[in-house]
Amino acid sequence: MKELEERIRKEGIVLGGDVLKVDSFLNHQVDTAFLSVLGKEFARRFAGSGVNKILTVEASGIAVAMAAAPYFGSCPVVFAKKGNAANQSADCYGANLHSYTRGIDYSARVSRNYLTKEDTVLILDDFLANGEALNALIDIVRQSGARLAGCGIVIEKAYQPGGARIRGLGVRVESLARIAAMAPGQITFAAE
Amino acid sequence: MKELEERIRKEGIVLGGDVLKVDSFLNHQVDTAFLSVLGKEFARRFAGSGVNKILTVEASGIAVAMAAAPYFGSCPVVFAKKGNAANQSADCYGANLHSYTRGIDYSARVSRNYLTKEDTVLILDDFLANGEALNALIDIVRQSGARLAGCGIVIEKAYQPGGARIRGLGVRVESLARIAAMAPGQITFAAE
Repeated sequence: MKELEERIRKEGIVLGGDVLKVDSFLNHQVDTAFLSVLGKEFARRFAGSGVNKILTVEASGIAVAMAAAPYFGSCPVVFAKKGNAANQSADCYGANLHSYTRGIDYSARVSRNYLTKEDTVLILDDFLANGEALNALIDIVRQSGARLAGCGIVIEKAYQPGGARIRGLGVRVESLARIAAMAPGQITFAAE
Repeated sequence: MKELEERIRKEGIVLGGDVLKVDSFLNHQVDTAFLSVLGKEFARRFAGSGVNKILTVEASGIAVAMAAAPYFGSCPVVFAKKGNAANQSADCYGANLHSYTRGIDYSARVSRNYLTKEDTVLILDDFLANGEALNALIDIVRQSGARLAGCGIVIEKAYQPGGARIRGLGVRVESLARIAAMAPGQITFAAE
């Protein structure tokens, strides 16, 4: 998505070799009008897929999901809660994951009340890199018996293995911007 | 706000003496259409106050802020990031606070890039009880030199000291539902 690529090129800051900061519109300050445009694009791509629920994980994912929901019939948004990896409970679907950014393991949990086999779920998140968070959310959808329409990602680091691995499972992944390579001052996008 | 009080009465679960779970529409699953109604009500109450930025804190606050933003001219939402209480940095405004729910101290931080003295800020959050989070956000607004239009809260536990204390500072606080007392199976609202 050209508009997003331009925004990342203009405002994104590459730290070290592998951290992309887009705090000015996505991860700290949220450009709500722009996220609404991204939400509309997710709806265009997943049109006709019968989505009745959006699943994401706290915290930044909530902004993406909330911006998209109006274009999916104002469907409910469910956000997985992060907690101690040891802390799972019987009334929740849960999966453990590793955060490469923070260097810790934690759990993602969703109450059994809010995902059922009647649901058709779209997973939305801000970033896809190693795919840890997305794998956990997919696992949670599988546990619930819901149908998974696919995953919508704002920024995929296409040079990292998460996207290929998840597409390899037969899951549809739509990323609005795919970064092929990056270094301080230089971001290259994969062809659409 | 009657519609919100009815929803809390119908779906809220009081745990122990003091925890109100509203996971079905606010804190875990988000009823996005309903939050949009709440957002519109915040806009009605703060009409003409010149708000150009909404400030909240991760995670649940993000949903409230995103739902309200379209009614404030699709203004930016800034969400304070939570971190280790020891972990403040020079490029951020920051305040430490205690979470009574989780029994820990942590910091709330906002980059100096995203709040300035040119801004008129509305603080939005899901709950107000002891006022720790709200105090931290107000402190951050003060540090930035921005004008504070006031605070909008979805649910205030009016029997706890936060609301009175913050109003006592001369800050306008608008709460859409104010709980006067609660016990398992019974929630009483303060008169509007």
